[in-house]
Amino acid sequence: MKRIGFLLLAVTTLAGVVAFMAPAFGRADGEAAPIFLTKVPPGYRDWKLVSVAHEEGELNDIRAILGNDIAIKAYRAGQLPFPDGAVIARIAWKYVPSEENDKVFGRRQSFVAGATPTWGLQFMVKDSKKYAATGGWGFGQFDQDGKPNLPEAVFKKCFPCHQPVKDRDFVFTRYSP
Amino acid sequence: MKRIGFLLLAVTTLAGVVAFMAPAFGRADGEAAPIFLTKVPPGYRDWKLVSVAHEEGELNDIRAILGNDIAIKAYRAGQLPFPDGAVIARIAWKYVPSEENDKVFGRRQSFVAGATPTWGLQFMVKDSKKYAATGGWGFGQFDQDGKPNLPEAVFKKCFPCHQPVKDRDFVFTRYSP
Repeated sequence: MKRIGFLLLAVTTLAGVVAFMAPAFGRADGEAAPIFLTKVPPGYRDWKLVSVAHEEGELNDIRAILGNDIAIKAYRAGQLPFPDGAVIARIAWKYVPSEENDKVFGRRQSFVAGATPTWGLQFMVKDSKKYAATGGWGFGQFDQDGKPNLPEAVFKKCFPCHQPVKDRDFVFTRYSP
Repeated sequence: MKRIGFLLLAVTTLAGVVAFMAPAFGRADGEAAPIFLTKVPPGYRDWKLVSVAHEEGELNDIRAILGNDIAIKAYRAGQLPFPDGAVIARIAWKYVPSEENDKVFGRRQSFVAGATPTWGLQFMVKDSKKYAATGGWGFGQFDQDGKPNLPEAVFKKCFPCHQPVKDRDFVFTRYSP
């Protein structure tokens, strides 16, 4: 009976610790897991298009926003908040003039996607439990080899920056039909 | 025998007419069919992304280029010419500044996809027989209701303009990984 009581206590205590840690760490093994994404969501390059954008300034990129099937379905239905499992990918390329295209148009006017910059690959993954502390979204940035390449201190700025679009579940990009 | 001879002559003549007309008209019923696309390829908005671009000047749009599975497979494999059945879609949106995004960045730098212009939806469909006269490609432009909205005289400019990229099977857009 003593042993059973100890086990019960241990299990209860462990459950409490896990429940407490889940929003921030999301792992039950006691190890402090990263708050943000550690792996590139597989197959993202085959996802459907949400929209496109261009950023001037230091970024100077042109970008496509893609969504997995859960995200696209929610976008098209106007479903907010996005359901768990939704993943949004933002692929950026350097913004470069196309001499080839410009020759056809007879003037400088055409800009296309060039090489991939260090911020080329970003994701938002919806998991309302795992990422409860950041609106249910986990953020990630990866280099071309699939390695996360932002220090955690910088990642902590993702969620505050997304606050202005809280009423769209913290997602800036609108769907373009 | 006289009747059989007449029929043979008729069939042979008809076959000759069809063979002659095929590159230009592609229909066997004798009616002059349009050289270019008359219907929007179904499901194009679900296709995978090839790349993105921005056109300044009179167009002033931001665009995504999508491909059906046959086109994407060829793009990724570097297969040239594109096989029959490949379809490339070019969706353009008006290029508009995003005040919402700019507030976050603290400067004017963000441009997003706005409304659909009249040239919003264009396609290239590969059918080496039907469109033999234009490099195997049929061209199409449609309004938001799916109606072709370019006069044939303008369509005739499509293929000549694509000549500079003949070595890429007349396709300007490169695949962006």
